Amino acid sequence: MFYLIGLGLSSPKDITLAGLEAIRRSQRVYLEAYTSILMEASTDQLEALYGKREDGTNIKLQLADREMVETQSDEILKNAAVDHVSFLVVGDPFGATTHTDLLLRCKESKIPYKAIHNASVLNAIGATGLSLYNYGQTVSIPFFIGNWKPRSWVDRLLDNLSLGLHTLLLLDIKVKEQSEENLARGRKIYEPPRFMSIPTAINQLLTSLKPPCPEDSADAAPMTEHAPLPVTRLDPDKTLAISVSRLGSSTQKFCAGSLSQLAQLDAKGFGDPLHSLIIIGHRLNPIERDYISQFAVDTDQWYCLAREQYKCS
Amino acid sequence: MFYLIGLGLSSPKDITLAGLEAIRRSQRVYLEAYTSILMEASTDQLEALYGKREDGTNIKLQLADREMVETQSDEILKNAAVDHVSFLVVGDPFGATTHTDLLLRCKESKIPYKAIHNASVLNAIGATGLSLYNYGQTVSIPFFIGNWKPRSWVDRLLDNLSLGLHTLLLLDIKVKEQSEENLARGRKIYEPPRFMSIPTAINQLLTSLKPPCPEDSADAAPMTEHAPLPVTRLDPDKTLAISVSRLGSSTQKFCAGSLSQLAQLDAKGFGDPLHSLIIIGHRLNPIERDYISQFAVDTDQWYCLAREQYKCS
Repeated sequence: MFYLIGLGLSSPKDITLAGLEAIRRSQRVYLEAYTSILMEASTDQLEALYGKREDGTNIKLQLADREMVETQSDEILKNAAVDHVSFLVVGDPFGATTHTDLLLRCKESKIPYKAIHNASVLNAIGATGLSLYNYGQTVSIPFFIGNWKPRSWVDRLLDNLSLGLHTLLLLDIKVKEQSEENLARGRKIYEPPRFMSIPTAINQLLTSLKPPCPEDSADAAPMTEHAPLPVTRLDPDKTLAISVSRLGSSTQKFCAGSLSQLAQLDAKGFGDPLHSLIIIGHRLNPIERDYISQFAVDTDQWYCLAREQYKCS
Repeated sequence: MFYLIGLGLSSPKDITLAGLEAIRRSQRVYLEAYTSILMEASTDQLEALYGKREDGTNIKLQLADREMVETQSDEILKNAAVDHVSFLVVGDPFGATTHTDLLLRCKESKIPYKAIHNASVLNAIGATGLSLYNYGQTVSIPFFIGNWKPRSWVDRLLDNLSLGLHTLLLLDIKVKEQSEENLARGRKIYEPPRFMSIPTAINQLLTSLKPPCPEDSADAAPMTEHAPLPVTRLDPDKTLAISVSRLGSSTQKFCAGSLSQLAQLDAKGFGDPLHSLIIIGHRLNPIERDYISQFAVDTDQWYCLAREQYKCS
């Protein structure tokens, strides 16, 4: 049996009993280590908690990076038709679609498989108090690199806002990535992990809303065609947002206010990764507003913007 | 400490280690029993798994229905500032917004609280193979009652489709509801639980898309104003869908095909509740199409519709 097991968001004890039983039954246990990180658990701590198999042998985790998962899936699935193999994923196993590929391979090779679900950021985000039914599509913000500043994610955010929906913005993670030079030269030297912070995300968002300067591009259209977006859609001083630090961990923190207010906070205040950002849509209702007010940077301003800009009263 | 604990979707062992520890530390343990059900666990099975507290006493669950949660929250939270009290919720604790109200009361009463997350239908639905990033807002279908046939949920579904997004339709659940007559007479007699099935959901959806008959309403506008919706948006023979039976349980089942195909299946084939339904948007991509093909009612037809109607190739 091949077990695809969600670990939840933060601590070793976020695993389910069903997940732990599957691990203790497994001859090999892989820990996927590139789409996310478990915020409050080292590999040693996980191994200490998982303990021993029934035969008394210690459970050891094998780290599975992107290269391993994408090129050595035969190795991962070896003997899984007769043995038990567990593949551990932070959050829920289907958060990253790359893992459905492993299940397709199981199907082709007639290996029985079972997914063991757990919390992911997509449902735990309910902790902010915004109803999960009022969210539109989830949007990922990629790191801007030099002049590479894609904006399809901004369009998706604006689509949500046009329907009055909230948007969960997931911030980019770069784990075990090669620099362009090392990639070009085939050198397996990896950059240190990078996790996009809330200030970077807000900065990229505000940059994306500005009209591009004509000198940025030789064939740019005249400025008049690049007028700012209507303020009714997204305005730094009027659009409400919630910063989300370390969701589901013991140091979870939310701050709520206008994008400008959040941008002015001390960056250190957001703390360590992982970070996310929520842009609030016009369907904000009084129950949501009141619950979130406990996280407001400025409570009076929070209620004022909710009333004036969101007609929430 | 007040613990708001997610139980996951189906079996007693879907609880996390952190959740189990909190329960075993608690003087009182409530099981919320009206927004959903745990598919493969009776109260007895849960109590057997939870076992004893450190002091050797058996853990007993107190069922909390809507009336109790909405009118006796003081009782639930009694002494929680000094004792430990656990409140168990199927799925993730924030799936139903009613529970944020308990946390607000904790805040007002200076009772420390902690939420322990778990899987919910909103992330476990990734098991169908549709990317969680390609879903729009989640939509609930209410039971139609006589002439009461609300359609705001259809509008939300069409909003998602207009952006090419998939829609998770959550089907209505009626647990411990009173009939109109018993409610009017103040008699606490409750109807048997009802869970909307996939055939009912499809039937209500198709009914909602038909133009209303003029005789249904005395002041109905002429038929010409009630022309059917453009087929490019939702058409029973062209729109692809996935039926979802007992997500996350050992008898989980998915069927994929056009709405018409799913409507023609033997209703018994969908099995016991809980049921959900997914309407697939035009952003369907080849990875999603290939993964879901394993659940197709008719594989050739599945690929044909994906190619012809969704331009997915």
